[in-house]
Amino acid sequence: MILLTRKAEFSASHYYWNEAWSAEENARAFGKCANRNGHGHNYTLEVTVAGEVDPVTGFVVDLKQLKDVMEKEVVAAYDHRHLNLEVPEFKAANPTTENIAVAIWRRLEGKIPGARLHRVRVYEMPDLFADYFGG
Amino acid sequence: MILLTRKAEFSASHYYWNEAWSAEENARAFGKCANRNGHGHNYTLEVTVAGEVDPVTGFVVDLKQLKDVMEKEVVAAYDHRHLNLEVPEFKAANPTTENIAVAIWRRLEGKIPGARLHRVRVYEMPDLFADYFGG
Amino acid sequence: MILLTRKAEFSASHYYWNEAWSAEENARAFGKCANRNGHGHNYTLEVTVAGEVDPVTGFVVDLKQLKDVMEKEVVAAYDHRHLNLEVPEFKAANPTTENIAVAIWRRLEGKIPGARLHRVRVYEMPDLFADYFGG
Amino acid sequence: MILLTRKAEFSASHYYWNEAWSAEENARAFGKCANRNGHGHNYTLEVTVAGEVDPVTGFVVDLKQLKDVMEKEVVAAYDHRHLNLEVPEFKAANPTTENIAVAIWRRLEGKIPGARLHRVRVYEMPDLFADYFGG
Amino acid sequence: MILLTRKAEFSASHYYWNEAWSAEENARAFGKCANRNGHGHNYTLEVTVAGEVDPVTGFVVDLKQLKDVMEKEVVAAYDHRHLNLEVPEFKAANPTTENIAVAIWRRLEGKIPGARLHRVRVYEMPDLFADYFGG
Amino acid sequence: MILLTRKAEFSASHYYWNEAWSAEENARAFGKCANRNGHGHNYTLEVTVAGEVDPVTGFVVDLKQLKDVMEKEVVAAYDHRHLNLEVPEFKAANPTTENIAVAIWRRLEGKIPGARLHRVRVYEMPDLFADYFGG
Repeated sequence: MILLTRKAEFSASHYYWNEAWSAEENARAFGKCANRNGHGHNYTLEVTVAGEVDPVTGFVVDLKQLKDVMEKEVVAAYDHRHLNLEVPEFKAANPTTENIAVAIWRRLEGKIPGARLHRVRVYEMPDLFADYFGG
Repeated sequence: MILLTRKAEFSASHYYWNEAWSAEENARAFGKCANRNGHGHNYTLEVTVAGEVDPVTGFVVDLKQLKDVMEKEVVAAYDHRHLNLEVPEFKAANPTTENIAVAIWRRLEGKIPGARLHRVRVYEMPDLFADYFGG
Repeated sequence: MILLTRKAEFSASHYYWNEAWSAEENARAFGKCANRNGHGHNYTLEVTVAGEVDPVTGFVVDLKQLKDVMEKEVVAAYDHRHLNLEVPEFKAANPTTENIAVAIWRRLEGKIPGARLHRVRVYEMPDLFADYFGG
Repeated sequence: MILLTRKAEFSASHYYWNEAWSAEENARAFGKCANRNGHGHNYTLEVTVAGEVDPVTGFVVDLKQLKDVMEKEVVAAYDHRHLNLEVPEFKAANPTTENIAVAIWRRLEGKIPGARLHRVRVYEMPDLFADYFGG
Repeated sequence: MILLTRKAEFSASHYYWNEAWSAEENARAFGKCANRNGHGHNYTLEVTVAGEVDPVTGFVVDLKQLKDVMEKEVVAAYDHRHLNLEVPEFKAANPTTENIAVAIWRRLEGKIPGARLHRVRVYEMPDLFADYFGG
Repeated sequence: MILLTRKAEFSASHYYWNEAWSAEENARAFGKCANRNGHGHNYTLEVTVAGEVDPVTGFVVDLKQLKDVMEKEVVAAYDHRHLNLEVPEFKAANPTTENIAVAIWRRLEGKIPGARLHRVRVYEMPDLFADYFGG
């Protein structure tokens, strides 16, 4: 068993807000992230798949197919978007680094030919990242 | 003469739009950046000052003062903001990497005690940056 | 279950020395690190916590609280310090990357509100790091 | 138990090719990597060992010995080499990132004094890497 | 006047060899780089253009056009290639970092719409790079 | 004319102190850096040389010779050292990033065969660096 990880990037806007709270409560909980004009990040996504090495090709996964799935399922939906306003899974849940990792897992799960999704890592900034392993 | 450079970071949203153009013209010129919901980046700012080394301290510039000026004049105004909507200099000019570099120069010029502003570099992403030397 | 990692940095001095050994034995075991004038590094600390995502906030941990704990328990004690001379846990144990990771675990364990400490990673240099998972 | 990771680098050429296939099949499976003139990469190797911290030295592993083993067993054999043409384990298996990780594991296993090999990670490029844990 | 820099990457093989010299002389001058099987690198290219900011768009150069020129003139010719064997300008000149920078300048000069080529920087590895300013 | 830059690293301790000042004045001017136990950094050095490309080799400078000069003149003297206590040029001048850059220039000037020293850049940390061009 071996793990293979590929990175991709997307640039997006977001803010944190809880509709059930007052503006004061939102500011207290989320600080500068509660600014509803939004702010943004260059997100880095690492997708790790697990599998056996194919003795004919030497690959765990076809890299072109993996790249295409990541592009189609994630980057096309998130890049140059406002996550709260344009991405359905964040209508009701804050697009925190944690929630983005879970959402990307759900977008990718079962769609990678010949390998098992093992981990989704999302960096919001170089000094902050979340890991999700499913389940 | 020696150059001293200090980095800072800010995360912000922006979009590119020309009010004099139709939506189609904006899309053609600016592509995905014309999405008026905005998208965002982790910007990296490098401020370079030039001067002589003070023989008593060994400094060209007091690093604490330089950091405070960068924080007060730039980071406090740009970080976790939507540049088009909340920063005055981008009401009438697109917040491109080039224009952000020029705007930061204007915010910093003449405010750094004891040293001359030499260069402002702004990274929008690790693979794209602008340099402005004034004048 | 999700993992959330935050980085911090500190700059410190250290040396390696075993009081029970002669200077020759120390030089043989520790090479240039046995220089008792000390040398130093920019250390990078990664603290990983594990937990469930709070459905109200979207957070595993309050990032402000995590940052404050890391600052108070680790950075305030280690940054701009000589680890052998000024940090109690290294009076009797060499401040190796391994021992620093264990010491930081002990400083942080039980102090992070609402999440479980999962891993402490310490980089002494970009090409050398230690991971400690407790226990 | 603690993990200690050390990095090294090597620059090498490779191509992907299956002798049992036609040129068209190779091009279809491997794209630009099927160019038999070869192309190359700056590979980054991370070797992680596991063990207990020696209370006398504070080390899991003697770093000088670890570096020497990595240099002798891997870097001396791979650096500035054409992997397909000059490294025996890639005569019959494509030097994919996955296969390189497995091959390095086999070169290092049992040769690191006093610690257990835990993981071999190989980066072909900053955005693509493989992890092998043995077994 | 402002400078705008965009990065691109390519992976290629090369070796250093002077046909007028014996094998011994080549080995003495070029060390491991004289291995004619070739070895390779992940090259990073930085292209800097100079110009005035267009007040309508906020751009010095159309980024899409700049990217397309870099892709067509450089990356398509160099990526996944053996520079000595497949790129004409290195038939008679070693593909050193210096010569690659000069060759890329010549490929790009006069082809970037609306801006002046200012600098070509080529990284062979993160710790080695060449800058060429033309002329 | 072309520029060629090579990096090297060294880890060292230092502090900032002016003997003519009281402890209070030193603390006010230098903050945490006035701790006389010392603290340390992983310094990164970039040495840039300028020259013509030799048409026979394709080199501006013999990289092996450049590396050897940097190793002998700088790294051997600074690495794993306490700059204030063990490096003569910092007996009377604070080892600030600025002064280190000037001192390295003086150590290297005139010692690089066949090329002219153009710039010395010293990073004390990734977000702080000094450039010295001589004269």
